[in-house]
Amino acid sequence: MSKVARIGLLGYGTVGSAVYALVQREHGRILEATGVDVQVVRIVEKDRSRYGQGAPSDLFTDQAGPVLADPEIDVIVELIGGKTVAYDFVEQALRAGKDVVTANKQLLANRGQPLFDLARRLSRQIRFEASVAGAVPIIKVMRESMVGADLHTVYGIVNGTTNYILTQMFQRAGDYPEMLARAQELGYAEADPTDDVGGADSAAKMAILGSVAFHSRVTMANVHYEGIGGVSLEDVQYAKDLGFAVKLLGAARLVDGRVNVRVYPALVPLDHPLAAINGVYNAVFLQGDVIDEIVLSGPGAGGRQTSSAVLADIMAVAGTAQVGFLQNCSCYLDLPFCPDEEMESALFIRVRVEDRAGVLAQIAAAFGEQGVSIQSLIQKGHGDQAELVLITHPSRERDSTAAIDQIVSLSCVRGRPMTMRVL
Amino acid sequence: MSKVARIGLLGYGTVGSAVYALVQREHGRILEATGVDVQVVRIVEKDRSRYGQGAPSDLFTDQAGPVLADPEIDVIVELIGGKTVAYDFVEQALRAGKDVVTANKQLLANRGQPLFDLARRLSRQIRFEASVAGAVPIIKVMRESMVGADLHTVYGIVNGTTNYILTQMFQRAGDYPEMLARAQELGYAEADPTDDVGGADSAAKMAILGSVAFHSRVTMANVHYEGIGGVSLEDVQYAKDLGFAVKLLGAARLVDGRVNVRVYPALVPLDHPLAAINGVYNAVFLQGDVIDEIVLSGPGAGGRQTSSAVLADIMAVAGTAQVGFLQNCSCYLDLPFCPDEEMESALFIRVRVEDRAGVLAQIAAAFGEQGVSIQSLIQKGHGDQAELVLITHPSRERDSTAAIDQIVSLSCVRGRPMTMRVL
Repeated sequence: MSKVARIGLLGYGTVGSAVYALVQREHGRILEATGVDVQVVRIVEKDRSRYGQGAPSDLFTDQAGPVLADPEIDVIVELIGGKTVAYDFVEQALRAGKDVVTANKQLLANRGQPLFDLARRLSRQIRFEASVAGAVPIIKVMRESMVGADLHTVYGIVNGTTNYILTQMFQRAGDYPEMLARAQELGYAEADPTDDVGGADSAAKMAILGSVAFHSRVTMANVHYEGIGGVSLEDVQYAKDLGFAVKLLGAARLVDGRVNVRVYPALVPLDHPLAAINGVYNAVFLQGDVIDEIVLSGPGAGGRQTSSAVLADIMAVAGTAQVGFLQNCSCYLDLPFCPDEEMESALFIRVRVEDRAGVLAQIAAAFGEQGVSIQSLIQKGHGDQAELVLITHPSRERDSTAAIDQIVSLSCVRGRPMTMRVL
Repeated sequence: MSKVARIGLLGYGTVGSAVYALVQREHGRILEATGVDVQVVRIVEKDRSRYGQGAPSDLFTDQAGPVLADPEIDVIVELIGGKTVAYDFVEQALRAGKDVVTANKQLLANRGQPLFDLARRLSRQIRFEASVAGAVPIIKVMRESMVGADLHTVYGIVNGTTNYILTQMFQRAGDYPEMLARAQELGYAEADPTDDVGGADSAAKMAILGSVAFHSRVTMANVHYEGIGGVSLEDVQYAKDLGFAVKLLGAARLVDGRVNVRVYPALVPLDHPLAAINGVYNAVFLQGDVIDEIVLSGPGAGGRQTSSAVLADIMAVAGTAQVGFLQNCSCYLDLPFCPDEEMESALFIRVRVEDRAGVLAQIAAAFGEQGVSIQSLIQKGHGDQAELVLITHPSRERDSTAAIDQIVSLSCVRGRPMTMRVL
């Protein structure tokens, strides 16, 4: 009982070459374990300097068209990245009757919907485990294991670069610019780190996780995101003193039938499982009425680790029939979104103030007028360095924003407060 | 494109009734998402007082035979437990052409192999997500997502009762007898807690995890296990002082092609992800060359949580064809086992000694003679209460056992030392 799965590989960079090597190494074991004979039969790669690097030269071509149309190929593995050429290739592959495995978060977060719709119409599969959190099998777990779990909350630490920087800052290794530079030296951050530190990378991944969790259409455009550039070493240390780690948090929530997906730096209580996710590791925290809460964590990037997710997808495509779980990936619902200002959050607020009597009363009054109650407050420094660090109880963001606007207008307050949400 | 999956449910206790309720509640959503129309068409239950409790009376019968033979039924969900009747029922179901979903760890850990072999011969599936770690989808992740990951180590905290007790002891809530009594009051421990606190429950689960991880036959008889009855509050507090939590650890390892699966109380470094798994939660830590390490955690028990795993298995059976992943569950390898004394472990050793000069030198000499080196040592108390608490570097267990035998024979040592392995 053996079945051949013929793979056309698009892209032979870090992940592509790792996928090829992994398939070669595990071929015999996988055949024995699953009865599937996985073969990479063609590699499409523009860069001719990569030809023959670890794979026979005659597998390579720079022409995608014939590979996408080749009736001998069962599964196209798209690892070229980007949103335009990759889109066309995936579309052509589906139309040619192939299943698709992709690691392309930008493609899915921006233009996934028409591809999922097309796959559904044609009864083909698109699998995308490697698009979020590397080796951590969060997509399969959400789509298949959580089928009856009725998830309402997905929190994710889905960017290793920012988690490395924030972990270093937590451990007092240095401030943000220093730790960003160190991340770049270690290869954890790119020369232009904007996508990572600015939150866009996390936002794309959270769009995907939100879509899968709630079976609804969430694209990049629906995800408000903030990065970690405004988080200072002092903020992280104040948070630590109060019993929190600072994490760049992705939060996808279903509130009364409405979806809200965002990315922001947040205070995570030290006894929360996500507080213990350090360095370049990723983690996803799922909540639902049936499961209570489940956490998955592991390496979020790396060619080797990501290739494990790609191979699992290839095997899943090879091992499943054309029934079941297909509509899941097309996000068949179109739920409304919940505006940010209607969400409830507790806030960490750090504000520079004049060092004189009555300041605290004025600030407390401003919060009170907006119905925002204060959970804890620390006064730090004095004279020119006087600061208040507050944590509020959860309240509507509309109200806490109004309270902060009111505080800014007080004569005793200097500058705009630094605020972060609390998980 | 809809497909009907007709379920025969064996057993309507806590989990069975939760499965029925979950299928009813999620029926429409699952049909929409996956195209599978899941129907519980028959419930086999001996206890007539349960008839009609949450499910229509006419679904119930006390006769399993006709249900197992019913050609209209696609999947048998076995939730009656035990190793004899359940074995016969699963065998009959497979022979009648049905796929089987079970939560029965004792059945699989003791008599799983002939059932897996039979399922393989007949091209049927046995799925058993709910047999280990409740809602945590560890079986699916290992069998499907880790297909190319080449796992070599599986550590598990797979018993909630003992983890609750040890967590309470860590937090100094009380000693072992008190915390066991509290666990019983809270319903976390049974009136006869032997299976949980003695390690047998964890051993059954580790036999299953070891089989799946290494595709090899591991039964209860292959798993040496120890419980937590010998762990005192003082041991836990000494460990804490040294930077460790104490956990009842399941360890399944592949060492040079040989399998070793055990359960024992162990010191887990506080910065290890398993140290943060508290209370009744379960967690499984996977290591392999391709993935580095992945951790899954969540509630390990409870009818509601376990029903989520059962439903996921039902959907997996309904959604997969008769190719792929089948041989995986039959553990097609028959790897040799590695004897415990050839395994390497670091040890925590607590030994009562005479309070006089030269004692330390004698004990250090005994370790030195066996080639066991000491990593850290604390002297506690004095006079009659004098104790040494040591942590060794990793060494062959044969050598550390010999060192301890030698120490016991020293005149300055009182009684048998307390030892625990260090993760």
